[in-house]
Amino acid sequence: TSSTNYGHVYNPNAQKVSLANLDTFARRHIGPTPANVQEMLKTLGYSDLDEFLTSAIPNHVLIKRKLSVSPAQGYTESEMIEHLQKLAAKNKIVKSFIGKGYAGTKLPAVIQRNLLESPEWYTSYTPYQPEISQGRLESLLNFQTMVSSLTGLPMANASLLDEGTAAAEAMSLSFHNMKGKKKVYVIDTNLHPQTVNVLKSRAGNIGVEIVELPLSTEEGITELNKIIKTVCGGLVQYPGTDGSIHNFTKVGEILHSHKVLFAMACDILALTVLKPPSEFGADIALGTTQRFGVPFGYGGPHAAYFSTTMKYSRKIPGRIVGVSKDRLGQPALRLALQTREQHIKREKATSNICTAQALLANISANYAVYHGPAGLKNIASRVYGFTTLLAKYIGQTEHQVLNDKWFDTLTVKLSGVSADDILAQALSKYNINLFKVDESTVSLSLDETVETADLVNLIELFTGKQVTLEADTELPTIPEELIRTDEILTHEVFNTHHSETAMLRYLHLLQSKDLSLANSMIPLGSCTMKLNATVEMQTLSMPGFTQIHPFAPIDQAQGYKELISEFEKDLNDITGFDATTNMPNSGAQGEYTGLSLIREYHKSRGEYEARNICLIPVSAHGTNPASAAMCGLKVVPVKCLDDGSIDLVDLQEKAELHAANLCSIMITYPSTYGLFEPGIKKAIDLVHANGGLVYLDGANMNAQVGLTSPGDLGADVCHLNIHKTFALSHGGGGPGQAPVCVKEHLKPFLPGHTFNADVTKPDSIQAVNSAPYGSASVIPVSYSYIKMLGANALPYVSAVAMLNANYMVKKLQPYYSILFVGKSTPHCAHEFILDLREFKAQGIEAIDIAKRLQDYGFHAPTMSFPVAGTLMIEPTESENLAELDRFVESLIKIRSEIDAYINGDKSGMVLKNAPHSMQDVVATPQEEWEARGYTREQAAYPLPWLKNNKCWPTVSRLDDTYGDMNLICTCPTVEEIAGE
Amino acid sequence: TSSTNYGHVYNPNAQKVSLANLDTFARRHIGPTPANVQEMLKTLGYSDLDEFLTSAIPNHVLIKRKLSVSPAQGYTESEMIEHLQKLAAKNKIVKSFIGKGYAGTKLPAVIQRNLLESPEWYTSYTPYQPEISQGRLESLLNFQTMVSSLTGLPMANASLLDEGTAAAEAMSLSFHNMKGKKKVYVIDTNLHPQTVNVLKSRAGNIGVEIVELPLSTEEGITELNKIIKTVCGGLVQYPGTDGSIHNFTKVGEILHSHKVLFAMACDILALTVLKPPSEFGADIALGTTQRFGVPFGYGGPHAAYFSTTMKYSRKIPGRIVGVSKDRLGQPALRLALQTREQHIKREKATSNICTAQALLANISANYAVYHGPAGLKNIASRVYGFTTLLAKYIGQTEHQVLNDKWFDTLTVKLSGVSADDILAQALSKYNINLFKVDESTVSLSLDETVETADLVNLIELFTGKQVTLEADTELPTIPEELIRTDEILTHEVFNTHHSETAMLRYLHLLQSKDLSLANSMIPLGSCTMKLNATVEMQTLSMPGFTQIHPFAPIDQAQGYKELISEFEKDLNDITGFDATTNMPNSGAQGEYTGLSLIREYHKSRGEYEARNICLIPVSAHGTNPASAAMCGLKVVPVKCLDDGSIDLVDLQEKAELHAANLCSIMITYPSTYGLFEPGIKKAIDLVHANGGLVYLDGANMNAQVGLTSPGDLGADVCHLNIHKTFALSHGGGGPGQAPVCVKEHLKPFLPGHTFNADVTKPDSIQAVNSAPYGSASVIPVSYSYIKMLGANALPYVSAVAMLNANYMVKKLQPYYSILFVGKSTPHCAHEFILDLREFKAQGIEAIDIAKRLQDYGFHAPTMSFPVAGTLMIEPTESENLAELDRFVESLIKIRSEIDAYINGDKSGMVLKNAPHSMQDVVATPQEEWEARGYTREQAAYPLPWLKNNKCWPTVSRLDDTYGDMNLICTCPTVEEIAGE
Ligand SMILES: Cc1ncc(COP(=O)(O)O)c(C=O)c1O
Ligand SMILES: Cc1ncc(COP(=O)(O)O)c(C=O)c1O
Ligand SMILES: O=C([O-])O
Repeated sequence: TSSTNYGHVYNPNAQKVSLANLDTFARRHIGPTPANVQEMLKTLGYSDLDEFLTSAIPNHVLIKRKLSVSPAQGYTESEMIEHLQKLAAKNKIVKSFIGKGYAGTKLPAVIQRNLLESPEWYTSYTPYQPEISQGRLESLLNFQTMVSSLTGLPMANASLLDEGTAAAEAMSLSFHNMKGKKKVYVIDTNLHPQTVNVLKSRAGNIGVEIVELPLSTEEGITELNKIIKTVCGGLVQYPGTDGSIHNFTKVGEILHSHKVLFAMACDILALTVLKPPSEFGADIALGTTQRFGVPFGYGGPHAAYFSTTMKYSRKIPGRIVGVSKDRLGQPALRLALQTREQHIKREKATSNICTAQALLANISANYAVYHGPAGLKNIASRVYGFTTLLAKYIGQTEHQVLNDKWFDTLTVKLSGVSADDILAQALSKYNINLFKVDESTVSLSLDETVETADLVNLIELFTGKQVTLEADTELPTIPEELIRTDEILTHEVFNTHHSETAMLRYLHLLQSKDLSLANSMIPLGSCTMKLNATVEMQTLSMPGFTQIHPFAPIDQAQGYKELISEFEKDLNDITGFDATTNMPNSGAQGEYTGLSLIREYHKSRGEYEARNICLIPVSAHGTNPASAAMCGLKVVPVKCLDDGSIDLVDLQEKAELHAANLCSIMITYPSTYGLFEPGIKKAIDLVHANGGLVYLDGANMNAQVGLTSPGDLGADVCHLNIHKTFALSHGGGGPGQAPVCVKEHLKPFLPGHTFNADVTKPDSIQAVNSAPYGSASVIPVSYSYIKMLGANALPYVSAVAMLNANYMVKKLQPYYSILFVGKSTPHCAHEFILDLREFKAQGIEAIDIAKRLQDYGFHAPTMSFPVAGTLMIEPTESENLAELDRFVESLIKIRSEIDAYINGDKSGMVLKNAPHSMQDVVATPQEEWEARGYTREQAAYPLPWLKNNKCWPTVSRLDDTYGDMNLICTCPTVEEIAGE
Repeated sequence: TSSTNYGHVYNPNAQKVSLANLDTFARRHIGPTPANVQEMLKTLGYSDLDEFLTSAIPNHVLIKRKLSVSPAQGYTESEMIEHLQKLAAKNKIVKSFIGKGYAGTKLPAVIQRNLLESPEWYTSYTPYQPEISQGRLESLLNFQTMVSSLTGLPMANASLLDEGTAAAEAMSLSFHNMKGKKKVYVIDTNLHPQTVNVLKSRAGNIGVEIVELPLSTEEGITELNKIIKTVCGGLVQYPGTDGSIHNFTKVGEILHSHKVLFAMACDILALTVLKPPSEFGADIALGTTQRFGVPFGYGGPHAAYFSTTMKYSRKIPGRIVGVSKDRLGQPALRLALQTREQHIKREKATSNICTAQALLANISANYAVYHGPAGLKNIASRVYGFTTLLAKYIGQTEHQVLNDKWFDTLTVKLSGVSADDILAQALSKYNINLFKVDESTVSLSLDETVETADLVNLIELFTGKQVTLEADTELPTIPEELIRTDEILTHEVFNTHHSETAMLRYLHLLQSKDLSLANSMIPLGSCTMKLNATVEMQTLSMPGFTQIHPFAPIDQAQGYKELISEFEKDLNDITGFDATTNMPNSGAQGEYTGLSLIREYHKSRGEYEARNICLIPVSAHGTNPASAAMCGLKVVPVKCLDDGSIDLVDLQEKAELHAANLCSIMITYPSTYGLFEPGIKKAIDLVHANGGLVYLDGANMNAQVGLTSPGDLGADVCHLNIHKTFALSHGGGGPGQAPVCVKEHLKPFLPGHTFNADVTKPDSIQAVNSAPYGSASVIPVSYSYIKMLGANALPYVSAVAMLNANYMVKKLQPYYSILFVGKSTPHCAHEFILDLREFKAQGIEAIDIAKRLQDYGFHAPTMSFPVAGTLMIEPTESENLAELDRFVESLIKIRSEIDAYINGDKSGMVLKNAPHSMQDVVATPQEEWEARGYTREQAAYPLPWLKNNKCWPTVSRLDDTYGDMNLICTCPTVEEIAGE
């Protein structure tokens, strides 16, 4: 790597024209031009990138090997699209009536184009800064309202990762609700198999025993009564995996009589027409909202939902949007009840979930907004009608429909033909996939996409008869005893935007309230908010990737197989590891998976029980201790020194003290302080020496690619947040995806999956997620990112990410203290911490600066993580010099506002009143305004370029206390808003 | 048609669930729900739609026949996509090195997604309201700056329709510049054949004689000198259609010595590296910008460019963006020099062009912004290098490259093989199209998409040898004598946004300044700004439609053929005509074509010279007289009565007076006053009785579909603006497309095309546009619109469009006078005129209301057309009741502001200061503001819902006079802006 090479990568042969394509992706992805890079290096006192890198990264950390990602020069964007289309074409699009928790659905084109394909929606961050996030907060509130209305339970969160993990959260909530004293969790035998697997995975580590009982039968009830004293809760599925619909009131009663929780996994579409779980006494309802507009995607991403009665409102896992008010008393939305979350509660958190499925929750919520209650009921009734008509035809044959009630799923005992034969016929004659239950039983689940022609085909398949059905054939209606009688989705938002014009405007209005990467940099430390290139994101609209059922026969998914295996090869190369699993669908899930692998390793050596201690530096992200706790590990914190590095003495002491019980250490590298700690290898050696394995949290991988690697450092396992390092967009709070990479000795344990032989090995641990490759359809995004940069440019990405950060440090140092930089290492890595604690005594806090930055059109950096009272800034390589300068200029101007405040100048109040919403600036009466000590112009346009380009906050500073005290987590009624 | 049926169409079987899909497109396209429709009917005093329609439309006008568009119930959106994909798949994607003015190009993904696929860009209207259009005005100014820089000529317009019509405009400008006294226009023999055809079409009608001379030869020069006295101007092509590059300085000198104009048609990519036309003394440069990012699209749409020296700045045809300033003295952009245009100058206009190619000009301009000067030169140099390398290899064979200089095109005389054989081989072995010049000659044009593999294939094709070429093979560079030496695209905007992040933000910034249908209704009378549904617009991104060269062999375009012929069938049905041509690519072009057909008809009867008078009601759109003039017709105006209808007495008088010379009448129906004139049939009969034919301007077709039709009324020909009636989006000023439909007697004359045998008949008139189907790739948009509504719902579209308009009339009548309604007909059709002339004496003008509407978040209605001092409002069927009510509420509130003004209340100044830009409201110092007599809140939030949802103007009211006096039509330098 050298600066001359950088010019080469940025634009190969810029000096001479050759056959090679000149318009490299690196040129488009990396913000600074070669000339900018030279300028920044000069500012830092270096003559080339090599000199800078060797100074910034400890010599024993910097690797010499070259990456082998091919093509080394990277694909051009058009080559990439062509290559992806070839891969997509290797996946076979089949009408999949497989069911098992995944249903065909139609994503309305207006939502596809204006939400899924809109960078304004997909590049935004989790709405931690509510004043510039009211659009997606409103949309997530709609999601919660939808879930609450459909399940009949008043409290819902803003999405979970998938149905399997949602079920695990229900189990965990039930278990902890009994303070861990009752160890049995009862589940019905009629759950989706993958849900059972994920439950077992999670249960094992915390010492819960899963007991499966046929809860729809007398025997099951008898068994339940026998063990009820040890039971912490129970879960049933509605409809069951075989399609049957049972009234589980009795189960609920038994559980309640022992004060433990009753949970139901429910089909979201069925709930629009069938009695809701609230009517059966459920305390928790959960499931997936996939079939509300989100395509299969070979398993994800989709948003799971989770709702409870009010009693458990403070125990719900995940993010919850709440209605509060702003500084000026206007209603305003925010993330509520954050004190439950892992970043605050750490190992005591209710769950480790962090990144969830915001983008997908928004799609599903808007699907409901667009169809409205009548539209959704129409869809559900049509699905029911088709299914029932088919059941009637099957009823006329020797085959037998095993379930006597159904919504969309029939389980059919075949007569005179094998399941394999029927599946083969369905595929070859009608291009339809069914599900094989056993050698003589199949099941099928109809969905929104079913057409008359499909029904005719299915009838022919089962009866051998060709029928003619007219479009106006009336369909059977849902029987009285099953039908839902209360009104659903009565809130105005679900009854307004039913024309495409209205929907377009609603989506546009929401989007216009939010700050995204389309506006300005989002310099969130630890989050790596880099460019999510269009070509990468286009893969999410390719039918060859989106239309594949996760449990389709593997030979129908050869494109995915090829892509994923190449992706894993590249990740192995980049991380210096030997094998990768793509099952975990968030960073926190990656951590859970990695730690589970470590535990399984110790188990294989008979040390499972003994080795139950996990060392975690105090600077670690809250998900680390939370994940460790979920794995049944005891967290022992390790101190950090004043220079930000791990206290190796403390580490050694604790490692040795706990040598017999040492399971692992979790380290982030570069550290969460943004440092290439020189002691990293020593730390790793110390843990190894005491029998522990090393988990490397890959959140900061963007500083490592091609320069060093977890494997080269000596770690045993790491996860990668591809929604950070590898350009998958953050989606306003998800989707994420976190491959876990391991050394050879952990490889045998990588998680298996009931429905996928490829990932399943003899010693595999249980599935950690519902689908074999997690949110498989986002993998092509990161795959393209890696393939377009290639081995040559990937290291420059990290180099420029670091250069950008250090350039900002240099520019800001005269105005602010920068934490740690210049102590154990002369430079920061790819992020740095602005220390604002010195102003606290004079009344200025980090939040004031964070909020004031919104008035400058910027998203605040990460606040008070990893150090309270600070802001952590990570620019990424995608920001160009001009944008870095604008951000620096803003912070410098704010510094003068801080001085004004400290000096008692009234104009300093601009920090306390920040951010200034448009309404505040425009509509505050002059008398009131005059009390402020600064002009409207100073409030809104503190720097001149803001007049031309500014993303405005739409509400004033949120009142968090009010919100937590007055919890409203569904769309407020007009009266509620007025009552505020 | 009845209201019950409306419910049926809106959502068939809403009462019962059947096999038919319930989610009809009609439900999504039409704003009002059945309940809304009932409510509006009640407001108007009707009980059902039939009653309303029979009252609103004269009985003899309303037709009884049912449309036969199939499927009658319309495709659902997913059926449509499937059907379109099948059609697209019937077009064969071949790498087309055919050239002839169309080159392969790469549309950068960031521009595709954030401009071409963004409703914020494509649903906006021509920027006649500059305060809410600064984004696309800036982008079009960039286009002009780009054209000006690349051609070296200071004055450029904001696009023309295609290269052929641009050439015709050059001819026309040259001819009129000599006051029509010199009748010969000289063109080089080396022009693209279709350009020659379009020139001949236009020349014939105005009596210009086209003379083709080989102007690159001595003989040509000698011939030119012989006829020079009769010559009004000349046109050469650079590079020529055979690829050769000639220095035409001598031609320019000869023309200039006779004070006539020298025009050059130039390849835009070549100009980045070859000497510009300015260096050869050109007065006019023209061409297409297609290869700057806009795919083939089987012929269009693409933006043509046109630039001149300053001397002809006021004679340039088409729209021109100019830099001016706003009321507060800030620089601001607007459409300049409108007094030249057809809507003002009518038959004396410099051209009839109205809708142009704004969206495509914006794509090409942003392509240049993204690549920058160095990037563009790289692309051009690579194309040149590949071409030259190929020429070298061909030079080693018996084949002979006929042109001794080239940029991207080689014409090859074959030896030992026929052209047909080589074409067949290229296609079958390499999937490459070449161009057949004659039996033993082919030509080929390389482009941005050429890859090393293509070169290797082409070398093999011509030499039989397989060569191996390394990616770093250096390419031949452009010879000294051809190379451009001055700097290009030096303005900052072309040197800033080169990373995708920067480009995304720039596009987003521009877009955020503009009002589009994504914000609120755009109730422009005569413009039919209805929903452009996503599914319709998705066709513009389907490679099967976009990647087809317009002159590809017809068997490669079977999908287009099938689609277009079905489309024409449906249009024949809808218009009541017998045949349709899809060649004209704008309404004005449609008019020109229709009138040309009428003239050809008279010619076939020996009456061409005699019949040269065209009757046009005074209420006609300006393009009508302008088109008539271009056809060599004399315009005789026909009066209108006080009730808005045509004065049939005056018509009869004039028709009879001119009976011997009567060529035609041009009528708009419903009239431009928005009336279903009862006298229409009588008018038509009168003209027919006197030997004239009837041209029906279809701009108002949205009130007719399924209710009446031009054919049923008795007209002979009409054009349809599919960018109005049939949902093609307006694109901020284009693309348009205007099929012309005719009765049997005009069918033989429909325009032919050199490269398309399908459209060419023995008696065809010359091509009117460069491509056989005009902007072919937009046809699928309107095709989908028609097919998703089907015969059943199409009439409801017109019915609801009328209902919406009449509902607004009813609501507004207590506050404003509505012109004409209730006089000759009890109702308006689909639009109506708000008469504001009564306020003029008290100082309030239509423009004040128009500008004030922006403060309410709305686009102004059509201003002062067809009646000065009025606003014409057309809501379309896509607006729902809530939006109509918001608009009505705004106008009512404005009425109270008018009263305040008239009563001398200072707060009435809010109308004069409107619109209030954000900067005005935020940054105007309090002392200044206080003088205004109203608060900032009243300025910006006159109604409460604006606080939640408002599209802001970004500048204050434009100063038009200043702009016209200080003409700046390229990006101003920093100094120029400061100097303002
Ligand atoms: C250091 C670190 N580890 C883990 C995570 C958790 O990742 P996720 O949000 O994908 O669950 C984060 C998230 O920001 C992080 O910063
Ligand atoms: C009545 C009428 N005729 C013709 C036209 C010209 O159509 P185009 O702009 O497509 O050239 C218009 C355009 O608004 C119009 O309103
Ligand atoms: O909470 C975080 O996503 O880091």
